[in-house]
Amino acid sequence: MARTDLSAFSCSIARTLGILDDTWSPLILRDAYLGLTRFDDLQRDLGVARNVLTERLERLVAHGLLERRPYQQRQPRYDYLLTGKGLDLMPALMALMAWGDRWTAQDEGPPALLVHRRCGEPTVPTVCCSSCGAPLAADEVAVRPGPGARRRPGTLVLAERAGLSPPPADEP
Amino acid sequence: MARTDLSAFSCSIARTLGILDDTWSPLILRDAYLGLTRFDDLQRDLGVARNVLTERLERLVAHGLLERRPYQQRQPRYDYLLTGKGLDLMPALMALMAWGDRWTAQDEGPPALLVHRRCGEPTVPTVCCSSCGAPLAADEVAVRPGPGARRRPGTLVLAERAGLSPPPADEP
Repeated sequence: MARTDLSAFSCSIARTLGILDDTWSPLILRDAYLGLTRFDDLQRDLGVARNVLTERLERLVAHGLLERRPYQQRQPRYDYLLTGKGLDLMPALMALMAWGDRWTAQDEGPPALLVHRRCGEPTVPTVCCSSCGAPLAADEVAVRPGPGARRRPGTLVLAERAGLSPPPADEP
Repeated sequence: MARTDLSAFSCSIARTLGILDDTWSPLILRDAYLGLTRFDDLQRDLGVARNVLTERLERLVAHGLLERRPYQQRQPRYDYLLTGKGLDLMPALMALMAWGDRWTAQDEGPPALLVHRRCGEPTVPTVCCSSCGAPLAADEVAVRPGPGARRRPGTLVLAERAGLSPPPADEP
Protein backbone atom coordinates (compact mmCIF):
# COMPACT_ATOMS: atom_id res chain seq x y z
CA MET A 1 0.00 0.00 0.00
CA ALA A 2 1.37 3.37 -0.98
CA ARG A 3 2.03 5.66 1.94
CA THR A 4 -0.17 8.70 2.26
CA ASP A 5 1.81 11.92 2.05
CA LEU A 6 0.85 13.44 5.37
CA SER A 7 3.20 16.39 4.86
CA ALA A 8 0.66 17.79 2.39
CA PHE A 9 -2.12 17.73 5.00
CA SER A 10 -3.13 21.11 6.32
CA CYS A 11 -2.71 19.90 9.90
CA SER A 12 0.25 20.02 12.25
CA ILE A 13 -0.77 16.78 13.96
CA ALA A 14 -0.74 15.01 10.59
CA ARG A 15 2.59 16.53 9.59
CA THR A 16 4.16 15.56 12.89
CA LEU A 17 2.85 12.01 12.57
CA GLY A 18 4.05 11.97 8.97
CA ILE A 19 7.58 12.64 10.17
CA LEU A 20 7.37 10.04 12.92
CA ASP A 21 5.86 7.65 10.38
CA ASP A 22 5.20 4.76 12.69
CA THR A 23 5.65 3.60 16.22
CA TRP A 24 9.35 2.78 15.92
CA SER A 25 10.51 6.34 15.41
CA PRO A 26 9.15 7.72 18.70
CA LEU A 27 10.72 4.77 20.51
CA ILE A 28 14.05 5.41 18.79
CA LEU A 29 13.82 9.03 19.94
CA ARG A 30 12.94 7.84 23.46
CA ASP A 31 16.02 5.63 23.49
CA ALA A 32 18.28 8.37 22.14
CA TYR A 33 16.93 10.64 24.87
CA LEU A 34 17.76 7.98 27.46
CA GLY A 35 21.31 7.58 26.17
CA LEU A 36 21.06 4.67 23.73
CA THR A 37 22.63 6.27 20.70
CA ARG A 38 24.22 3.38 18.80
CA PHE A 39 22.69 1.12 16.21
CA ASP A 40 23.40 -2.17 17.97
CA ASP A 41 22.07 -0.94 21.32
CA LEU A 42 18.91 0.42 19.69
CA GLN A 43 18.41 -2.80 17.77
CA ARG A 44 18.81 -4.96 20.85
CA ASP A 45 16.70 -2.74 23.09
CA LEU A 46 13.73 -2.53 20.73
CA GLY A 47 13.99 -5.91 19.06
CA VAL A 48 13.35 -4.19 15.73
CA ALA A 49 14.55 -5.63 12.41
CA ARG A 50 17.87 -4.14 11.31
CA ASN A 51 16.61 -2.94 7.93
CA VAL A 52 13.64 -1.22 9.58
CA LEU A 53 15.90 0.46 12.13
CA THR A 54 18.26 1.62 9.37
CA GLU A 55 15.39 3.16 7.43
CA ARG A 56 13.90 4.88 10.49
CA LEU A 57 17.25 6.32 11.56
CA GLU A 58 17.84 7.71 8.08
CA ARG A 59 14.38 9.24 8.10
CA LEU A 60 14.89 10.87 11.50
CA VAL A 61 18.27 12.24 10.38
CA ALA A 62 16.75 13.53 7.11
CA HIS A 63 14.02 15.33 9.06
CA GLY A 64 16.57 16.84 11.42
CA LEU A 65 15.45 15.13 14.65
CA LEU A 66 18.63 13.10 14.98
CA GLU A 67 22.19 13.97 14.10
CA ARG A 68 24.68 11.31 13.05
CA ARG A 69 28.10 11.74 14.62
CA PRO A 70 30.98 9.31 13.91
CA TYR A 71 32.56 7.78 17.00
CA GLN A 72 34.93 5.52 15.10
CA GLN A 73 36.77 6.44 11.93
CA ARG A 74 38.41 3.33 10.47
CA GLN A 75 35.21 1.31 10.10
CA PRO A 76 32.67 4.14 10.34
CA ARG A 77 30.28 3.83 13.27
CA TYR A 78 27.89 6.50 14.44
CA ASP A 79 26.14 7.90 17.46
CA TYR A 80 22.62 9.09 16.76
CA LEU A 81 22.05 12.16 18.88
CA LEU A 82 18.92 14.22 19.40
CA THR A 83 19.03 17.64 17.79
CA GLY A 84 17.23 20.64 19.26
CA LYS A 85 14.27 19.77 17.04
CA GLY A 86 14.24 16.20 18.34
CA LEU A 87 14.69 17.27 21.96
CA ASP A 88 11.80 19.70 21.55
CA LEU A 89 9.52 16.78 20.68
CA MET A 90 10.27 14.89 23.90
CA PRO A 91 7.82 16.76 26.16
CA ALA A 92 4.96 15.87 23.77
CA LEU A 93 6.07 12.22 23.89
CA MET A 94 6.15 12.53 27.69
CA ALA A 95 2.54 13.74 27.56
CA LEU A 96 1.66 10.59 25.58
CA MET A 97 3.52 8.61 28.23
CA ALA A 98 1.48 10.22 31.01
CA TRP A 99 -1.72 9.23 29.20
CA GLY A 100 -0.37 5.68 28.89
CA ASP A 101 0.41 5.67 32.61
CA ARG A 102 -3.16 6.73 33.38
CA TRP A 103 -4.92 4.35 31.00
CA THR A 104 -2.65 1.37 30.31
CA ALA A 105 -0.35 0.86 33.31
CA GLN A 106 -2.89 -1.17 35.31
CA ASP A 107 -1.71 -3.00 38.43
CA GLU A 108 2.01 -2.98 37.68
CA GLY A 109 2.16 0.80 37.90
CA PRO A 110 4.06 3.20 35.65
CA PRO A 111 7.14 1.74 33.95
CA ALA A 112 9.00 5.02 34.39
CA LEU A 113 8.94 7.90 36.84
CA LEU A 114 10.02 11.41 36.01
CA VAL A 115 11.68 14.00 38.19
CA HIS A 116 11.77 17.64 37.19
CA ARG A 117 15.36 18.50 38.02
CA ARG A 118 14.61 22.21 37.92
CA CYS A 119 12.22 22.01 40.89
CA GLY A 120 13.46 18.70 42.28
CA GLU A 121 9.99 17.15 42.47
CA PRO A 122 8.38 14.10 40.83
CA THR A 123 6.47 15.30 37.80
CA VAL A 124 3.59 14.20 35.60
CA PRO A 125 3.93 15.92 32.21
CA THR A 126 0.75 17.97 31.92
CA VAL A 127 -0.37 19.89 28.85
CA CYS A 128 -1.11 23.44 29.96
CA CYS A 129 -2.32 26.72 28.52
CA SER A 130 0.52 29.05 27.50
CA SER A 131 -1.59 32.04 28.51
CA CYS A 132 -2.99 31.19 31.96
CA GLY A 133 -0.88 28.14 32.86
CA ALA A 134 -3.87 25.96 33.81
CA PRO A 135 -4.00 22.36 32.57
CA LEU A 136 -5.75 22.24 29.19
CA ALA A 137 -8.93 20.17 29.19
CA ALA A 138 -9.91 19.32 25.63
CA ASP A 139 -13.51 20.42 26.20
CA GLU A 140 -12.35 23.88 27.23
CA VAL A 141 -10.47 24.54 23.99
CA ALA A 142 -11.92 26.07 20.84
CA VAL A 143 -10.27 25.41 17.48
CA ARG A 144 -10.23 28.05 14.73
CA PRO A 145 -8.74 27.95 11.23
CA GLY A 146 -5.25 29.47 11.25
CA PRO A 147 -3.36 31.28 8.45
CA GLY A 148 -2.12 27.91 7.11
CA ALA A 149 -5.58 26.30 6.97
CA ARG A 150 -6.33 24.79 3.56
CA ARG A 151 -9.11 22.73 2.03
CA ARG A 152 -7.32 19.55 1.05
CA PRO A 153 -7.47 15.82 1.61
CA GLY A 154 -6.79 15.41 5.30
CA THR A 155 -8.90 18.44 6.16
CA LEU A 156 -11.48 18.48 3.40
CA VAL A 157 -14.73 18.42 5.33
CA LEU A 158 -13.23 20.29 8.27
CA ALA A 159 -12.13 23.13 6.00
CA GLU A 160 -15.50 23.10 4.25
CA ARG A 161 -17.29 23.51 7.56
CA ALA A 162 -14.89 26.26 8.55
CA GLY A 163 -15.92 28.10 5.37
CA LEU A 164 -12.58 27.82 3.58
CA SER A 165 -12.79 27.92 -0.21
CA PRO A 166 -11.64 24.97 -2.30
CA PRO A 167 -8.07 25.02 -3.62
CA PRO A 168 -7.48 26.89 -6.92
CA ALA A 169 -7.30 24.72 -10.04
CA ASP A 170 -3.48 24.72 -10.14
CA GLU A 171 -3.18 23.25 -6.66
CA PRO A 172 -3.43 19.47 -6.49
CA MET B 1 5.06 -8.20 8.27
CA ALA B 2 3.63 -9.26 11.63
CA ARG B 3 2.78 -6.37 13.89
CA THR B 4 4.88 -6.00 17.00
CA ASP B 5 2.81 -6.29 20.17
CA LEU B 6 3.60 -2.96 21.74
CA SER B 7 1.18 -3.59 24.61
CA ALA B 8 3.76 -5.99 26.07
CA PHE B 9 6.44 -3.30 26.12
CA SER B 10 7.30 -1.97 29.54
CA CYS B 11 6.80 1.60 28.35
CA SER B 12 3.77 3.87 28.39
CA ILE B 13 4.83 5.63 25.20
CA ALA B 14 4.98 2.28 23.40
CA ARG B 15 1.63 1.15 24.80
CA THR B 16 -0.02 4.41 23.81
CA LEU B 17 1.41 4.18 20.30
CA GLY B 18 0.34 0.52 20.19
CA ILE B 19 -3.25 1.60 20.75
CA LEU B 20 -3.03 4.38 18.17
CA ASP B 21 -1.37 1.91 15.82
CA ASP B 22 -0.69 4.27 12.96
CA THR B 23 -1.22 7.80 11.82
CA TRP B 24 -4.89 7.38 10.88
CA SER B 25 -6.15 6.79 14.40
CA PRO B 26 -4.94 10.11 15.85
CA LEU B 27 -6.47 11.90 12.86
CA ILE B 28 -9.77 10.08 13.38
CA LEU B 29 -9.70 11.20 17.02
CA ARG B 30 -8.89 14.74 15.88
CA ASP B 31 -11.90 14.69 13.56
CA ALA B 32 -14.20 13.24 16.22
CA TYR B 33 -13.03 16.00 18.55
CA LEU B 34 -13.85 18.60 15.89
CA GLY B 35 -17.32 17.20 15.35
CA LEU B 36 -16.90 14.77 12.44
CA THR B 37 -18.43 11.69 13.97
CA ARG B 38 -19.85 9.76 11.01
CA PHE B 39 -18.17 7.25 8.77
CA ASP B 40 -18.80 9.02 5.47
CA ASP B 41 -17.65 12.39 6.77
CA LEU B 42 -14.48 10.86 8.21
CA GLN B 43 -13.81 8.98 5.01
CA ARG B 44 -14.23 12.08 2.85
CA ASP B 45 -12.27 14.35 5.18
CA LEU B 46 -9.23 12.10 5.48
CA GLY B 47 -9.31 10.45 2.07
CA VAL B 48 -8.63 7.13 3.78
CA ALA B 49 -9.66 3.79 2.27
CA ARG B 50 -13.01 2.57 3.64
CA ASN B 51 -11.66 -0.78 4.86
CA VAL B 52 -8.81 0.94 6.70
CA LEU B 53 -11.22 3.39 8.30
CA THR B 54 -13.53 0.55 9.37
CA GLU B 55 -10.64 -1.30 10.99
CA ARG B 56 -9.30 1.78 12.78
CA LEU B 57 -12.74 2.74 14.12
CA GLU B 58 -13.27 -0.78 15.47
CA ARG B 59 -9.87 -0.65 17.11
CA LEU B 60 -10.54 2.72 18.74
CA VAL B 61 -13.92 1.47 20.00
CA ALA B 62 -12.33 -1.76 21.30
CA HIS B 63 -9.73 0.25 23.20
CA GLY B 64 -12.41 2.52 24.66
CA LEU B 65 -11.33 5.78 23.03
CA LEU B 66 -14.46 6.04 20.88
CA GLU B 67 -18.02 5.03 21.62
CA ARG B 68 -20.39 3.92 18.86
CA ARG B 69 -23.88 5.37 19.19
CA PRO B 70 -26.63 4.59 16.64
CA TYR B 71 -28.28 7.64 15.09
CA GLN B 72 -30.49 5.68 12.71
CA GLN B 73 -32.25 2.42 13.52
CA ARG B 74 -33.72 0.93 10.36
CA GLN B 75 -30.44 0.68 8.47
CA PRO B 76 -28.03 1.01 11.39
CA ARG B 77 -25.71 4.02 11.19
CA TYR B 78 -23.46 5.26 13.96
CA ASP B 79 -21.88 8.31 15.43
CA TYR B 80 -18.38 7.73 16.74
CA LEU B 81 -17.99 9.84 19.85
CA LEU B 82 -14.95 10.46 22.02
CA THR B 83 -15.10 8.80 25.42
CA GLY B 84 -13.46 10.29 28.48
CA LYS B 85 -10.39 8.20 27.70
CA GLY B 86 -10.31 9.53 24.13
CA LEU B 87 -10.90 13.11 25.22
CA ASP B 88 -8.07 12.77 27.75
CA LEU B 89 -5.67 12.01 24.90
CA MET B 90 -6.46 15.21 23.01
CA PRO B 91 -4.15 17.53 24.99
CA ALA B 92 -1.20 15.26 24.17
CA LEU B 93 -2.18 15.38 20.48
CA MET B 94 -2.40 19.16 20.83
CA ALA B 95 1.16 19.14 22.16
CA LEU B 96 2.21 17.22 19.02
CA MET B 97 0.34 19.83 17.00
CA ALA B 98 2.22 22.66 18.70
CA TRP B 99 5.51 20.96 17.81
CA GLY B 100 4.29 20.64 14.21
CA ASP B 101 3.39 24.34 14.20
CA ARG B 102 6.89 25.21 15.38
CA TRP B 103 8.80 22.91 13.06
CA THR B 104 6.68 22.17 9.98
CA ALA B 105 4.30 25.09 9.43
CA GLN B 106 6.83 27.20 7.50
CA ASP B 107 5.59 30.28 5.64
CA GLU B 108 1.90 29.43 5.55
CA GLY B 109 1.62 29.61 9.32
CA PRO B 110 -0.28 27.28 11.64
CA PRO B 111 -3.25 25.48 10.06
CA ALA B 112 -5.23 25.83 13.28
CA LEU B 113 -5.34 28.26 16.18
CA LEU B 114 -6.51 27.36 19.65
CA VAL B 115 -8.33 29.47 22.20
CA HIS B 116 -8.51 28.42 25.83
CA ARG B 117 -12.15 29.15 26.58
CA ARG B 118 -11.53 29.03 30.31
CA CYS B 119 -9.23 32.07 30.21
CA GLY B 120 -10.39 33.45 26.87
CA GLU B 121 -6.89 33.77 25.44
CA PRO B 122 -5.12 32.21 22.44
CA THR B 123 -3.16 29.23 23.67
CA VAL B 124 -0.18 27.15 22.65
CA PRO B 125 -0.45 23.73 24.32
CA THR B 126 2.67 23.52 26.48
CA VAL B 127 3.83 20.48 28.41
CA CYS B 128 4.42 21.58 31.99
CA CYS B 129 5.55 20.15 35.30
CA SER B 130 2.68 19.02 37.51
CA SER B 131 4.65 20.06 40.59
CA CYS B 132 5.96 23.55 39.80
CA GLY B 133 3.93 24.43 36.69
CA ALA B 134 6.95 25.49 34.64
CA PRO B 135 7.25 24.29 31.03
CA LEU B 136 9.12 20.98 30.94
CA ALA B 137 12.37 21.10 28.99
CA ALA B 138 13.49 17.59 28.14
CA ASP B 139 17.03 18.26 29.36
CA GLU B 140 15.72 19.22 32.79
CA VAL B 141 13.93 15.91 33.35
CA ALA B 142 15.43 12.79 34.92
CA VAL B 143 13.92 9.39 34.18
CA ARG B 144 13.90 6.61 36.79
CA PRO B 145 12.51 3.07 36.60
CA GLY B 146 8.96 2.95 38.00
CA PRO B 147 7.11 0.08 39.73
CA GLY B 148 6.03 -1.26 36.32
CA ALA B 149 9.54 -1.28 34.82
CA ARG B 150 10.47 -4.64 33.31
CA ARG B 151 13.37 -6.07 31.35
CA ARG B 152 11.72 -7.07 28.09
CA PRO B 153 11.97 -6.47 24.37
CA GLY B 154 11.18 -2.80 23.96
CA THR B 155 13.15 -1.91 27.06
CA LEU B 156 15.82 -4.56 27.17
CA VAL B 157 19.00 -2.53 27.24
CA LEU B 158 17.35 0.34 29.08
CA ALA B 159 16.22 -2.00 31.87
CA GLU B 160 19.66 -3.63 31.93
CA ARG B 161 21.33 -0.27 32.43
CA ALA B 162 18.80 0.61 35.12
CA GLY B 163 19.85 -2.54 36.96
CA LEU B 164 16.60 -4.45 36.55
CA SER B 165 16.92 -8.22 36.62
CA PRO B 166 15.93 -10.32 33.62
CA PRO B 167 12.40 -11.76 33.53
CA PRO B 168 11.85 -15.11 35.33
CA ALA B 169 11.86 -18.19 33.12
CA ASP B 170 8.06 -18.43 32.96
CA GLU B 171 7.71 -14.94 31.51
CA PRO B 172 8.08 -14.74 27.73
